[in-house]
Amino acid sequence: MRTVFWEDNKVKMIDQRLLPGEFVIAEFDSVAGVAVSIKEMYVRGAPAIGATGGFGMALAAQTSPAQDRDGLLADLRVAKAALDVARPTAVNLSWATARLLDLAERTVLTNPDDIRSALLAEAQALADEDVEINRRMGFHGAAVIPEGANILHHCNTGALATVDFGTALGVVFACQEQGKPIHVWVDETRPRLQGARLTAWELMRAEVPMHLIADNAAGHLMRTGQVDVVIFGADRVAANGDAANKIGTYKLGVVAKENGIPVYCVAPTSTVDLNLPDGDHIPIEERGAEEVFKVGDSIIAPEGVPVYNPAFDVTPHRYLTGIVTEEGICYPPFTESLRRAKEAAEARVQAQRQARQKQG
Amino acid sequence: MRTVFWEDNKVKMIDQRLLPGEFVIAEFDSVAGVAVSIKEMYVRGAPAIGATGGFGMALAAQTSPAQDRDGLLADLRVAKAALDVARPTAVNLSWATARLLDLAERTVLTNPDDIRSALLAEAQALADEDVEINRRMGFHGAAVIPEGANILHHCNTGALATVDFGTALGVVFACQEQGKPIHVWVDETRPRLQGARLTAWELMRAEVPMHLIADNAAGHLMRTGQVDVVIFGADRVAANGDAANKIGTYKLGVVAKENGIPVYCVAPTSTVDLNLPDGDHIPIEERGAEEVFKVGDSIIAPEGVPVYNPAFDVTPHRYLTGIVTEEGICYPPFTESLRRAKEAAEARVQAQRQARQKQG
Repeated sequence: MRTVFWEDNKVKMIDQRLLPGEFVIAEFDSVAGVAVSIKEMYVRGAPAIGATGGFGMALAAQTSPAQDRDGLLADLRVAKAALDVARPTAVNLSWATARLLDLAERTVLTNPDDIRSALLAEAQALADEDVEINRRMGFHGAAVIPEGANILHHCNTGALATVDFGTALGVVFACQEQGKPIHVWVDETRPRLQGARLTAWELMRAEVPMHLIADNAAGHLMRTGQVDVVIFGADRVAANGDAANKIGTYKLGVVAKENGIPVYCVAPTSTVDLNLPDGDHIPIEERGAEEVFKVGDSIIAPEGVPVYNPAFDVTPHRYLTGIVTEEGICYPPFTESLRRAKEAAEARVQAQRQARQKQG
Repeated sequence: MRTVFWEDNKVKMIDQRLLPGEFVIAEFDSVAGVAVSIKEMYVRGAPAIGATGGFGMALAAQTSPAQDRDGLLADLRVAKAALDVARPTAVNLSWATARLLDLAERTVLTNPDDIRSALLAEAQALADEDVEINRRMGFHGAAVIPEGANILHHCNTGALATVDFGTALGVVFACQEQGKPIHVWVDETRPRLQGARLTAWELMRAEVPMHLIADNAAGHLMRTGQVDVVIFGADRVAANGDAANKIGTYKLGVVAKENGIPVYCVAPTSTVDLNLPDGDHIPIEERGAEEVFKVGDSIIAPEGVPVYNPAFDVTPHRYLTGIVTEEGICYPPFTESLRRAKEAAEARVQAQRQARQKQG
């Protein structure tokens, strides 16, 4: 089962808000609904959001009443704007919607129904590529994980954060597939507890040895020699390697460096935004107070408590040992290595698209 | 209202497990009950635990059936052992029980009832001194808090963590009393959420400007220039200044230092353990899995999830700008400054005890 997929002319997805208690497939037949699914975190994780954005654009084309190419393009531009604002930090969303819109704008097709079909095929390809990309990242990343490593992991970056397999957790799954013994310290990842709810669930199902910890315990583990490597994903990586990721990642990066522990950010090139020179230009989403003062049905703070709730932070590149992409591991200077990885990935996508067109 | 007090031959205390939802006074008429109240965290915070240990020893004397001094001493030694093991990290507990036992062992009194009265008076004095000590720490600490400071605070160190007024939060209250404008970022402090439940409650009652944050947000605030000073308490400070405090403190210390932000540990000299050369010798309590996988009535992780739950971590002294004690602020080299502060405090206690004996 994929995290997000197309079926019966609808965008369907696992409602991750309900895990691990309930397993429910939500379905959306409108672009507005897909935007809500992203904003309210039915689906989360930068690559999964990207795939959802791609399917959202395909859905926009399917539901558009336009009878010519120009009308369809106009509707697609409106749909892209509606999807892109759903969450501001992960660049994969606008990367995916741009890829679909770009196809519609450049295609030689003129019949709107042909364009609709091409867009759906492109959204499917984008989702399929995500799984392939994750397997490639897992392979590259596993090479730097020592035998018997204690791995510290933040948030959820597994199958649920992607179309399937995962980014940083994909590295863990790749180690597991290779028979390399590992153990994972799972940061619970307040406030939304993606680690406790989702990563623990994925690792337990995969029978990967693990312990859940309060985020606060990670420093103690690092200082006392119980962590060999720190891994996490990213929602946006700037041209210089500064990485925005789930709130709390920055503290891990600093404390790992202080203790001489290698730190790998695992992110596909679709997460790399070469338009931003550094992390200070990455927009940081602020979310509602309820995520902090309410856990499940339990209110954990006095009524009316003022809350500040940034959803992401930026880990400056100097704390990163490497950035694992589908094109290999990028090392400092990241400005060079990320640009090369991005170019290689784009060449691959072009080649695959041409191969599909020849087949079709 | 004091956090813990003696009334009707019972040890009474605010049941902090129920705050902020319910305000309940729990009462105990046996040493075993007092030990449970510490272990299960009806009462928490190193100074409050110390005062509770003192009252527990007074209760042991009251409830002992011994008819001579030797029998009473034997019962007191058993009571001390039972109380000391309730929680291993905070040294204030064994410091307080030792102070009461020491009085019983050294007194010239021979009538057991006279010794019982002397022990109750000593427990009361210890509790009264705690409030006075906290006010002195608040005064010393407030001097280094800049006007308009954004203060980052971990766990609860307020009136509830002490007999009254608080240690690190006492510094905040002292600023407030002096009319110095401040704002506090309140770490929620997983897993037991003492920040969200207790510190937010105390600061809102005192009308101190504040925002509750997930612990994970503290790094982002520090990196983006929104924190001027970090303050917290301690459960045990080794002779070299290494400080054990609530889990998560260590990460704050490292990240604050990385960002050039001053860090003050606020702890009475009763928390300083000169018998331990450094923090690696401080026992770190591990608590149950349920504290992590259950919040209020909500289960936040898959059933059967393995959990690692250390309750404290050690912040090495190199991350501390100063340690605020009732005798003033200790600066590096802490081995010297802490020893001097401890001597000054012990001289003060002796002088006060002699003054009481002259009055009596």
